[in-house]
Amino acid sequence: MFKKILIIGCGLIGSSILKSSIKNKISKNIYVNEKSKINKKIIKKIDKKIKFINNLNKDIEDMDFIIICTPMSEYNFIFSKLNSLVFKKTIITEVGSTKRNLLKFTKNKDLVLSHPIAGSEVSGPNFGNKELFNNKLCILINKGNRSKIKLVNKFWQKLGSKVILMNVKDHDKIFAITSHLPHLIAYNLIKTAQDFQKLEKRNLIKYSAGGLRDFSRTAASNEIMWRDIFFSNKDNMINSINKFIQNLNFLKRSIKNKKDKELIKILINSKKVRKQIINLKQDVPKPDFGRNI
Amino acid sequence: MFKKILIIGCGLIGSSILKSSIKNKISKNIYVNEKSKINKKIIKKIDKKIKFINNLNKDIEDMDFIIICTPMSEYNFIFSKLNSLVFKKTIITEVGSTKRNLLKFTKNKDLVLSHPIAGSEVSGPNFGNKELFNNKLCILINKGNRSKIKLVNKFWQKLGSKVILMNVKDHDKIFAITSHLPHLIAYNLIKTAQDFQKLEKRNLIKYSAGGLRDFSRTAASNEIMWRDIFFSNKDNMINSINKFIQNLNFLKRSIKNKKDKELIKILINSKKVRKQIINLKQDVPKPDFGRNI
Repeated sequence: MFKKILIIGCGLIGSSILKSSIKNKISKNIYVNEKSKINKKIIKKIDKKIKFINNLNKDIEDMDFIIICTPMSEYNFIFSKLNSLVFKKTIITEVGSTKRNLLKFTKNKDLVLSHPIAGSEVSGPNFGNKELFNNKLCILINKGNRSKIKLVNKFWQKLGSKVILMNVKDHDKIFAITSHLPHLIAYNLIKTAQDFQKLEKRNLIKYSAGGLRDFSRTAASNEIMWRDIFFSNKDNMINSINKFIQNLNFLKRSIKNKKDKELIKILINSKKVRKQIINLKQDVPKPDFGRNI
Repeated sequence: MFKKILIIGCGLIGSSILKSSIKNKISKNIYVNEKSKINKKIIKKIDKKIKFINNLNKDIEDMDFIIICTPMSEYNFIFSKLNSLVFKKTIITEVGSTKRNLLKFTKNKDLVLSHPIAGSEVSGPNFGNKELFNNKLCILINKGNRSKIKLVNKFWQKLGSKVILMNVKDHDKIFAITSHLPHLIAYNLIKTAQDFQKLEKRNLIKYSAGGLRDFSRTAASNEIMWRDIFFSNKDNMINSINKFIQNLNFLKRSIKNKKDKELIKILINSKKVRKQIINLKQDVPKPDFGRNI
């Protein structure tokens, strides 16, 4: 599909793109730019033909496809390099979880904005998985050079993704609710449990199977990535936090005043969402995620 | 182990006790009291030897072990029957998720308070599982008749549970944090997402794989059971909700003011809990719970 591709940043997503690109024969020449020595060792073992580029210098001038998979806080540095090196014909995409903050980078280079919905609580190339994007959604922002978007679309489809086009505003609003708020809430619940542990000097963790363990998975996600997301989607985050607290205060009052019907109505309504999610094949149709411990 | 046992209420937990009791030869005579006709049909198919008791009347006088597995809101009615029928020697236990509210029932009958940590988002006898209690914790409240507690302890161990003794106050405090608050928060997050859907007239569910789907599982739990839990553990719930909101407001301010170090510190700290949970074998050691969709 491409003559020379470059993956910048080879954590969970980068290494999964790498493995999936090899499997799906995206290019015969795959280059990787990765800062961490430990990660490089792991990546070398994936395939002998992978070539490393240690600095974003002249070596990258003739790439025809570049995928940026670093935390978003590194984009400023990366684009300061790319802007002076890469030709107009090069297709560049990235995989950040928020988009409004990236618009400034799209101006010179027709950067195509991608968001594969395939994250996990684990990070690093040890967890790279060639099937990570298979049957998963990938959002593409419909802004910029049409023909480049078309090619990036084709790329994700070759990796198995189901591509959906969306505008920036919708993207950041929707994922604030379906992804960013859930992560913040999970972090906050674990923080609250930790505070309780300290205060009461008890080990709560051994009783976590009652529900806490699910939150601990989400709250184990990469801190750099999530800080970048929370900061860059600030306005949507604050709005959704406010709405969440408003609803929680309502539930608190329902409990305090034993408002039977009011509470039951909310619980019954919430139950419906699970079925919709299962029907849309967004989750496994097994009790407890099919988890067996 | 027992001559005649009676299971009152045969939903997920009751039917799992039923199946596990058959497998582990707890008794040759297992009786079931279940209100729902649909449930009774399902239970009949489990084993021909199961006998049904339609009313809690004289038929239950010679039971030597009774396990109450109904929602806690039915206990008043059940004990009004048991108190006039069952002899002092009968061992009675129940499986409710809160305990302080049940102390009033322990007075006459040396009721033993059990809490198997083995719930799920699914309910009803269709999901009954003879391995549900295997390797799971079961809390026993160390209050009341020692020899009865000892026998109930033995019963849970035969079903595969790891029994931990605890006092009522500790129990209700600990599970407010590890189970009850996580459930309320999950319901509240789904409610917030639903509000957003209505307001923006969008379908969010198809983007739920970013994190929302995990909360939808917890928020699909039985509404009667959870209403009873929230109401009966009211004081601990209100305390923990307040602490949760306080922490969430702190996170909101960190995001608003881009307090980099402050935020990263909380995220890194939260991450540690996952490892502890995995090490304590409270969850599966696989990314994304080993879920594959």
